[in-house]
Amino acid sequence: MSHSFLSNKTSLALLTDFYQLTMSYGYWKAGFDRKEAVFHLFFRTLPFDGGYAIAAGLQSVIEYLENFRFDESDLAYLASLKSYSGKQLFSDEFFDYLAKMKFSCTVDAVLEGTPVFPYEPLLRIRGPLIQCQILESPLLNLINFPSLIATKASRICLAAKGDPVLEFGLRRAQGIDGALTASRASYIGGCDSTSNILAGKLYGIPVKGTHSHSWVMVFDDELEAFKTFGKYLPENTVFLVDTYNTLNGVEKAIEAAKELRKQGYRFLGIRLDSGDLAELSIKSRALMDEAGFQDAAIVASNELDETIISELKRQGAKIAVWGVGTNLVTAKDQPAFDGVYKISAVRDPKGPWKYKLKLSEQMKKVSNPGILQVKRFSANGIYVGDAIYDIQSKMDQDVSIVDPFDATLEHHFSKELESEDLLQPIFKKGQLVYQLPSLLEIKERTAFLLKKLPNGVKRFLNPHKYVVGLEKSLYNIKIKLIKDIRANMAQDYTVPENET
Amino acid sequence: MSHSFLSNKTSLALLTDFYQLTMSYGYWKAGFDRKEAVFHLFFRTLPFDGGYAIAAGLQSVIEYLENFRFDESDLAYLASLKSYSGKQLFSDEFFDYLAKMKFSCTVDAVLEGTPVFPYEPLLRIRGPLIQCQILESPLLNLINFPSLIATKASRICLAAKGDPVLEFGLRRAQGIDGALTASRASYIGGCDSTSNILAGKLYGIPVKGTHSHSWVMVFDDELEAFKTFGKYLPENTVFLVDTYNTLNGVEKAIEAAKELRKQGYRFLGIRLDSGDLAELSIKSRALMDEAGFQDAAIVASNELDETIISELKRQGAKIAVWGVGTNLVTAKDQPAFDGVYKISAVRDPKGPWKYKLKLSEQMKKVSNPGILQVKRFSANGIYVGDAIYDIQSKMDQDVSIVDPFDATLEHHFSKELESEDLLQPIFKKGQLVYQLPSLLEIKERTAFLLKKLPNGVKRFLNPHKYVVGLEKSLYNIKIKLIKDIRANMAQDYTVPENET
Repeated sequence: MSHSFLSNKTSLALLTDFYQLTMSYGYWKAGFDRKEAVFHLFFRTLPFDGGYAIAAGLQSVIEYLENFRFDESDLAYLASLKSYSGKQLFSDEFFDYLAKMKFSCTVDAVLEGTPVFPYEPLLRIRGPLIQCQILESPLLNLINFPSLIATKASRICLAAKGDPVLEFGLRRAQGIDGALTASRASYIGGCDSTSNILAGKLYGIPVKGTHSHSWVMVFDDELEAFKTFGKYLPENTVFLVDTYNTLNGVEKAIEAAKELRKQGYRFLGIRLDSGDLAELSIKSRALMDEAGFQDAAIVASNELDETIISELKRQGAKIAVWGVGTNLVTAKDQPAFDGVYKISAVRDPKGPWKYKLKLSEQMKKVSNPGILQVKRFSANGIYVGDAIYDIQSKMDQDVSIVDPFDATLEHHFSKELESEDLLQPIFKKGQLVYQLPSLLEIKERTAFLLKKLPNGVKRFLNPHKYVVGLEKSLYNIKIKLIKDIRANMAQDYTVPENET
Repeated sequence: MSHSFLSNKTSLALLTDFYQLTMSYGYWKAGFDRKEAVFHLFFRTLPFDGGYAIAAGLQSVIEYLENFRFDESDLAYLASLKSYSGKQLFSDEFFDYLAKMKFSCTVDAVLEGTPVFPYEPLLRIRGPLIQCQILESPLLNLINFPSLIATKASRICLAAKGDPVLEFGLRRAQGIDGALTASRASYIGGCDSTSNILAGKLYGIPVKGTHSHSWVMVFDDELEAFKTFGKYLPENTVFLVDTYNTLNGVEKAIEAAKELRKQGYRFLGIRLDSGDLAELSIKSRALMDEAGFQDAAIVASNELDETIISELKRQGAKIAVWGVGTNLVTAKDQPAFDGVYKISAVRDPKGPWKYKLKLSEQMKKVSNPGILQVKRFSANGIYVGDAIYDIQSKMDQDVSIVDPFDATLEHHFSKELESEDLLQPIFKKGQLVYQLPSLLEIKERTAFLLKKLPNGVKRFLNPHKYVVGLEKSLYNIKIKLIKDIRANMAQDYTVPENET
């Protein structure tokens, strides 16, 4: 089932930054509406000081683009906007143009769940300049956040070493959609279930949960609370034991569990939500084992993240299921993915492509020119490195790449290596040519691809740097362009033949 | 205009944690559906190491509650959920109960834009236990995030000392709603405008923006880019000058601005988006002044927050307008507001209230019992302190409060002081009794109330701690209850008379 907000057919064309519209108006007035452009969406730094990121958000992008249109209320709103002197900012003819606009770009994207690295395009969009421009803000919004959360989830699940991880961040998520999108991205990244029922309904994610402190507090007595819960939900019983005193609570949970057992039901376990989780889990485990409940699980929650889970495991905590909320769904230690969207080529109708880059005093902020693709090389099923290349480059031979920040650092990939292109066709001139896999398929593919990443890259502390570089001819174009701009000679590189 | 996602009449009843439904089912099976409860939503720690927070989100809460209902698709989804043995988890009779459920709680809330402090209820909800329970997760989601962002925005605007602040966080916000809700909360907190056009359309927030780097890069030449922009949007021109070289860009902007001036238009200014903003703004200011553009503003952006803005001001930066994005809309340094929702009283139909609290080994996590209200005292128009009190307490005399974490710390408020109750009636038995002010009214009220907060409380570094305590008789009930529970005597405090 599709995304609640994107599928309700409300126009979301105005979900963009105002400057996209002022620029579009300028382009249109200047007769640039027939120009074609190429933009790439990429990020510059890996979140969480990690060694990789996981791309996500493509489903929302597809739904957004399929429904992209300006409706009457959008245009009426735009017509209400005035300049400082009180004049209507945009002309009525421009509104006619917007009303008739039909999404017609060609979009290639890295599929959801793919491990990705800085400067690799996650999305390449090519088409009418104005459409590409307007789409900058929504595309960034729809890719940045899910990629952030899928990455965080994959780290947390790696720390849990195969134990189930339950996402329950709804209450502290950044908005309704912040919660739903996080549930979906967390599932892609490796979580097993969510507490958010709407995410279950919309996306088919398994939902989990039993009771909170308030259940216990409504009763006069904790034991009575447990027994009553067991009575009415005998096949979905995990007792939360820390409302008053944790180990006391565990004993009462065991007493209630014995009644469940008498009636032939399985006691699923207890949840710890405060205190020293290592110590309490070990003591609780002992109490439960002693009472013959070896199969009952200990679920733990309380501000968990990959660091705390790793540490609890190191301390021998007897925790079998991990509940993670705030730290996952807001990616608390780094709540924004730094994706950007940059123009890299422009041309007049039928003219040659002019490759473009944005200069900066920081080399890290200089964008890459061209029409880009990423080739990922593998040896024995393990990824060895990626080449960012221009689609006009010859890639059927050995490939040399250059580190964009250190020209002395080159890598060579033999043409004998296995390789695959990461960007896949999604839309061709506005027509969807890609069939979305199910969410479960995306999740399984993510787990499969993560196994192909070298272990060092997945380490939390000082991860190994995965090799990514610019294919040498692209690197040379970039350097030439930088020098030309600095020398004020030209501000683009015109592709010799109109090849693409 | 109302919130896009909440007003589309889609049922959002399942936007809750699964355990709310399992508990509700247990309550219903146990015959507790006629029990009445009181829950409070409050937070425990101030975000950003600050001295205050700003309450926000009430509008969304109202829209959510007005549309609260389980529709057929919700119930069909719930019916699809199975226990471990494959049985339907909830009974069909329960679905009939949910289908007929009509929101009938009484809700009191602190109005949007009010400065608030730890442990003060932002929301008090009283009504059928099951409804109160189900609403926990959505209420937290709808209050936590906007309160976080309104607080962050107010800090950023305080740092800007009256300079306009533009919010443009859409691209890195946590989801679509993360962006929209942040735009609205930022406006409440003091921002002047947003870049998000949809937020402009939905909420009436002024939208701002002119052009980005891509505008410049589409042209062969930066000067030509500026001139063309000025030609077609002569009354909305702020040139972004750092595409290639900032000061070089400023000179070209000035050249283009001279053309604008010749044609009788005002040159609004330039935007700096990278580099040393202090130094570049001072040099740019000098260049612009020299060319006679003393009225043109310097807008700055690039990872700004209250700390960087304060520091830039200290360095004498000549920045007149501040653009803030990621750090504001994700509250990057602390992306979650720690609001919680706790039951504090329960009763059988017509029975006496039983006051409840949740114990914890940490006193900070022990909840407050009762049916609470907050009285805020002022002297000479400045707030002096707040008393959290039970509504059965006598408040028409001098009031003593106790610091809940330090019994030796008492404060006394004379009955001669001005005072006001913070919680205002919003719903009475499900009927809306409150008329939402306009967003602009909320924003203006916020600014007005912030002026009443002592300056020390608004300081960023080691802010003064605003006085909040439990009214003495409430404090005594709480202590008695803690002792009773620890002694295993009772787990509630029964209110002597059925007063409320």
